[in-house]
Amino acid sequence: MKEHDVVGIGNAIVDIIGRCDDAFLAKHACVKGSMQLVDEPAMLALYDSMGPGTEISGGSVANTMAGVASFGGKSAFIGKTASDQVGAIFGHDIRAAGVTFTTKPAPSGSAPTGRCLIFVTPDGQRTMNTFLGVSPELDHGEVDEALIKSAKIVYLEGYLFDRPEAKAAFRQAAAIAAKAGRQVALSLSDSFCVDRHRAEFLSLIKDSVDILFANEAEITALYETGSFDEAARKAQADTKLAALTRSEKGSVILSAGRTIEIPCMPVSKVVDTTGAGDLYAAGFLFGVSNGLDLGKAGKLGSLAAAEIISHIGARPEVKLADLAKQKGLL
Amino acid sequence: MKEHDVVGIGNAIVDIIGRCDDAFLAKHACVKGSMQLVDEPAMLALYDSMGPGTEISGGSVANTMAGVASFGGKSAFIGKTASDQVGAIFGHDIRAAGVTFTTKPAPSGSAPTGRCLIFVTPDGQRTMNTFLGVSPELDHGEVDEALIKSAKIVYLEGYLFDRPEAKAAFRQAAAIAAKAGRQVALSLSDSFCVDRHRAEFLSLIKDSVDILFANEAEITALYETGSFDEAARKAQADTKLAALTRSEKGSVILSAGRTIEIPCMPVSKVVDTTGAGDLYAAGFLFGVSNGLDLGKAGKLGSLAAAEIISHIGARPEVKLADLAKQKGLL
Repeated sequence: MKEHDVVGIGNAIVDIIGRCDDAFLAKHACVKGSMQLVDEPAMLALYDSMGPGTEISGGSVANTMAGVASFGGKSAFIGKTASDQVGAIFGHDIRAAGVTFTTKPAPSGSAPTGRCLIFVTPDGQRTMNTFLGVSPELDHGEVDEALIKSAKIVYLEGYLFDRPEAKAAFRQAAAIAAKAGRQVALSLSDSFCVDRHRAEFLSLIKDSVDILFANEAEITALYETGSFDEAARKAQADTKLAALTRSEKGSVILSAGRTIEIPCMPVSKVVDTTGAGDLYAAGFLFGVSNGLDLGKAGKLGSLAAAEIISHIGARPEVKLADLAKQKGLL
Repeated sequence: MKEHDVVGIGNAIVDIIGRCDDAFLAKHACVKGSMQLVDEPAMLALYDSMGPGTEISGGSVANTMAGVASFGGKSAFIGKTASDQVGAIFGHDIRAAGVTFTTKPAPSGSAPTGRCLIFVTPDGQRTMNTFLGVSPELDHGEVDEALIKSAKIVYLEGYLFDRPEAKAAFRQAAAIAAKAGRQVALSLSDSFCVDRHRAEFLSLIKDSVDILFANEAEITALYETGSFDEAARKAQADTKLAALTRSEKGSVILSAGRTIEIPCMPVSKVVDTTGAGDLYAAGFLFGVSNGLDLGKAGKLGSLAAAEIISHIGARPEVKLADLAKQKGLL
């Protein structure tokens, strides 16, 4: 088994991205900036009502693994697709990005591959409506023990907690990693997801998580406070290492009593914020797994986030290693 | 039946767009800037070798109909999809663009929906590899007589000649239009396509076509000359109205002994030339079918072409009517 820097487990999703205005979000009861789960009929009804789409592979952890590979890191992804055309697109794109992806598609007759309808408003904000499809069905040997052990870090998304089969896979992977002395990294995914699973997330963070990723909305939701500073203090007490992202305010890295503030990287125009957190995590995990100092890892995160919000879609359009070299970061 | 400005008949294709360098094209024996037809195994082998993709609905005439609708025109499209996920994407996108699209998908078990692998090189040039799939199967009542008669212009793509069933549909539609006193417009599609069907295209142009669209490579291939000026003189003799596009040299409109030169619209960066000709045709057909003078119709063509080459994909990202108003063209 080839060694990896990071192996990620998450939902295997293809994004369908379209532009809309705020009135469209209001009409369809979508909360701007959030991710909501929808069943297939609701997804199809929303799809009917939306404008022309662009399909780009997505999935939070999958985006992060593509980002790690784009930095030149060795990443792997575990996630479930169906034996359908959308699944073939997902599989092609993640392998073409240089990510090890060996999870077998579900046999014909399964639920379809997961899709996320992403509505992008003129301010660049993204609002997501996810139909998970077959994606959570990770309870049939998909968690590959040898693959988990091959990586320095296993990266898990909070979204996995939304379905029991996926949550079981999450716990199984975390246990394998812990037993093998690997690090466990967690993304809190979405503030509504935090609301759904607060107690379990808090207990996980205290007991099993080595590296925590959260944005401002998620970390304040976790600690049920309106104050970022208060949430950050609590996160610092509860975690070994946390990276908290704050959009244009940059990010804060908390580790062993230290606080490192990382500015955001300016972009000429925010086109689509989809994947900003995922790509920040990519830069940070690439840096940490390759022994860079935390400040540099955070800067790589900011760089990758800046690249991703400057275009449609949550997969890098340029080689992040080249971008990092241009900026003197690698 | 609602009245239409233009009804188009063409291949129903979803584009899979990826970036590559010139060495990739050479390795895979792709002629830069051309369209080649590939069968399913060849398409899948090429797909395996290409980088991550972005899926955006395409198809030459379908792009043009989306462009006409984006200008505020009333357009319709006839084209065949399969009952699969790619077909659902095509159907969604063309309807969401405001185009009348009532062609029923083929029943389950048919060939799949057509796909085109588009390789975009750093110079913005696109090289296309099309797997037509079910698309040419237009011989089972797809050519809707009432729909053809509902439009001032029927627009046909030369690509239809590459398959006998599609060619039959082309001839059927042209005959219906002629009998109903409608105009017939033709795009020559691609210089290799012209090489394949030169004699038939020449005879069609002299006998049945009212409006001809061609780029420099296509019109010089048609008349087997290296000289654009010579090809243009011959086209002027053979046609009632022709619009010849010449990339950064703009376009030339030939009508009743008159020659109108239209400059190209400058763009800050050519990102992807896919659809430049399709969208030029959209502006021109919108203009002509709405009674604008030929010079203005040509300028609308240049405007739409400029918009399309400034981003990935061959469907407009902004409302072309708004863009035309900003430029004082509408």
